[in-house]
Amino acid sequence: MISEKMKPFMANNSAIRAMFEEGKRMAAVYGRENVYDFSLGNPNVPVTQVTEAILDVVKNEDFMTLHGYMSNAGYEDVRQTIAESLNKRFGTNFSFKNLIMTVGAASGLNIILKSILNPGDEVIVFAPYFVEYNAYVRNYDGNVVVISPDTETFMPKLDEFETKITAKTKAVIINNPNNPTGVVYDEATIKAMAAILEKKEKEFGTSIVLISDEPYRELAYGGVEVPFVTKYYHNAVVGYSYSKSLSVPGERIGYVVIPDEVDDSAALIGAATIANRVIGCVNAPSLVQKVIKYCIEHEVTVDLETYEKNRNLIYGALTEYGFTCAKPDGAFYLFVKSPVENEKEFCEVAKKHHVLVVPGSSFACPGYVRLAYCVSYEQIERSLPAFKKIAEEYGLCK
Amino acid sequence: MISEKMKPFMANNSAIRAMFEEGKRMAAVYGRENVYDFSLGNPNVPVTQVTEAILDVVKNEDFMTLHGYMSNAGYEDVRQTIAESLNKRFGTNFSFKNLIMTVGAASGLNIILKSILNPGDEVIVFAPYFVEYNAYVRNYDGNVVVISPDTETFMPKLDEFETKITAKTKAVIINNPNNPTGVVYDEATIKAMAAILEKKEKEFGTSIVLISDEPYRELAYGGVEVPFVTKYYHNAVVGYSYSKSLSVPGERIGYVVIPDEVDDSAALIGAATIANRVIGCVNAPSLVQKVIKYCIEHEVTVDLETYEKNRNLIYGALTEYGFTCAKPDGAFYLFVKSPVENEKEFCEVAKKHHVLVVPGSSFACPGYVRLAYCVSYEQIERSLPAFKKIAEEYGLCK
Repeated sequence: MISEKMKPFMANNSAIRAMFEEGKRMAAVYGRENVYDFSLGNPNVPVTQVTEAILDVVKNEDFMTLHGYMSNAGYEDVRQTIAESLNKRFGTNFSFKNLIMTVGAASGLNIILKSILNPGDEVIVFAPYFVEYNAYVRNYDGNVVVISPDTETFMPKLDEFETKITAKTKAVIINNPNNPTGVVYDEATIKAMAAILEKKEKEFGTSIVLISDEPYRELAYGGVEVPFVTKYYHNAVVGYSYSKSLSVPGERIGYVVIPDEVDDSAALIGAATIANRVIGCVNAPSLVQKVIKYCIEHEVTVDLETYEKNRNLIYGALTEYGFTCAKPDGAFYLFVKSPVENEKEFCEVAKKHHVLVVPGSSFACPGYVRLAYCVSYEQIERSLPAFKKIAEEYGLCK
Repeated sequence: MISEKMKPFMANNSAIRAMFEEGKRMAAVYGRENVYDFSLGNPNVPVTQVTEAILDVVKNEDFMTLHGYMSNAGYEDVRQTIAESLNKRFGTNFSFKNLIMTVGAASGLNIILKSILNPGDEVIVFAPYFVEYNAYVRNYDGNVVVISPDTETFMPKLDEFETKITAKTKAVIINNPNNPTGVVYDEATIKAMAAILEKKEKEFGTSIVLISDEPYRELAYGGVEVPFVTKYYHNAVVGYSYSKSLSVPGERIGYVVIPDEVDDSAALIGAATIANRVIGCVNAPSLVQKVIKYCIEHEVTVDLETYEKNRNLIYGALTEYGFTCAKPDGAFYLFVKSPVENEKEFCEVAKKHHVLVVPGSSFACPGYVRLAYCVSYEQIERSLPAFKKIAEEYGLCK
């Protein structure tokens, strides 16, 4: 009954489900407060102004305007508001025409990939990376080409990148700030990447689209700047999601930006808009689009301090205990070096101390684990003795 | 830049856009009240209790529960509520496990097709039909096999259907009540279709999935029953959308039902749930899922009388003027026979009288036009003299 393309997913999915079930089982046995689940990248900081926004749009918008069909690209007023907000923040020059509202960043990436990939085309990603990219690329029969991780800095290995670009390279996906490392690619890195891409485009006579997946853009700490890629490279598009910046991952709301500078820009905007319809989304959910407009106009965003406080506590403690991890400037993840080569073994040891983390092999980077600190400050506090014991068990403590 | 698969859409889309632009242009020139636009299947009857539902869930649900991630299949309580409502109405025996909440019916069809289609597999549809089905099937490299229309009744031609089922037939899509004809397939038709499918499954040793696309299920008039397909055929799945029954097409909310009786049922449910994630939807929008639960519990549905009154007025008038069309028992469409063979010519004549309708060739059924009566009663009243003049011009009047 099941299609050949879907079969490989079935086995993988069971592993993730098994982990989720294990967490639930442990909570039932030991009590929820005694299980330290750092496995899920699920925002935990409510943004109460979103509720005000919902009440406002429900009160002030006409029913059929608020809940009816609109252009497959989304409401023009919402897109224009976002465009102007981006222009103000990043000195860009977008209008509503450059934006397509999407069902989260996931469908944003899908409509871009569907618009450009022919079977056999290559899409470059940098390990460690969000492995759903594999699925999105395979949806359109593309091939993922993985650049190996620089485990010192977790910045993209640009020398290897340059050698792996071929005439078949159609796109490059970066995720900035990064899941799972929390690292932010700085301006120098983006500039160097752009220079390589431009050189290779000339060499092969091709267009290579740099897709920046940015659900964590707003989550950058200590004044770190996240460069806006369209300013550095002509064939750059951005996929954004409000899942993290407004703590509404269930609502599935985001957008893609396709600048006028992109080769064949009007055609790509047209194709991506049609793809939005054809993959089955049709349009981004309507009420939430209007909520986004309200939130931009009222400068609503998640309270970053909560995440930053969490980061400081857990990063400080873990490094003090002797764990090694990349500097987490953004997102809400730490990518911690496993004290043993096989990080799945480490995950099992951690589990004995009621600590749940995700193995790095789930992000194409074995030897590390991902720890999501989008949990309560109290959970982190309660978990620290467990981390200390784990460090002692491995002889990490200084 | 644009992928080969997307290129054919670009040309078609321009035609639809041209029509939309023409409507706007005419409204600007002649005044909106003097243009009779029957081209769009966009619900026009607000359901104010949906607003109450939104206010209720925003007030009573925890922020992160209401806007957070849940299972890719949707909230269990919402799915259970829908399952029980279906069981009560149709004597079925579903639990939440048989339901997957989807981003409208469009993504529901996509996740089913992605789960079952291998390249070259055949999907049978009955003309006239919603041509987006072509796009959905091609997303997974399937081939659409079209059964020619029975232009007397617009019921499916079952003799031709039987001859066109092959070993490669993986699915059959029906749309009941039907867009564009407004016809409802009755129980006898569904039973006969099921008997043919069972016979052919045995003959070829295959599983053939009957997919019933039912966004118009609640829109049936004069006590006409819309049979629930899973009661008549073991490999039947249902795709539903609340776009029409709650007048919220922009919100993108629906579900698929996969009964336990379907071959390999657990695997299909699993695959479709993963497909929901992989195509980029991840899950149906969360707040609106909870709104659906409220609406079921409070028995909220669109006021059918408005559409029925519209139907009676326009069907009565058009047949009186000498137009021919199938009996419109459901949805909000009339499928009217063009007085001339080339219905696009008829559309142009209608346009001269400020009447906008969609050519049947857009539904793989030339010689007819679709008229959407989800407009104000007053628009229909104002348009009748124009229809009368058109009928006179073609010498249809008795």
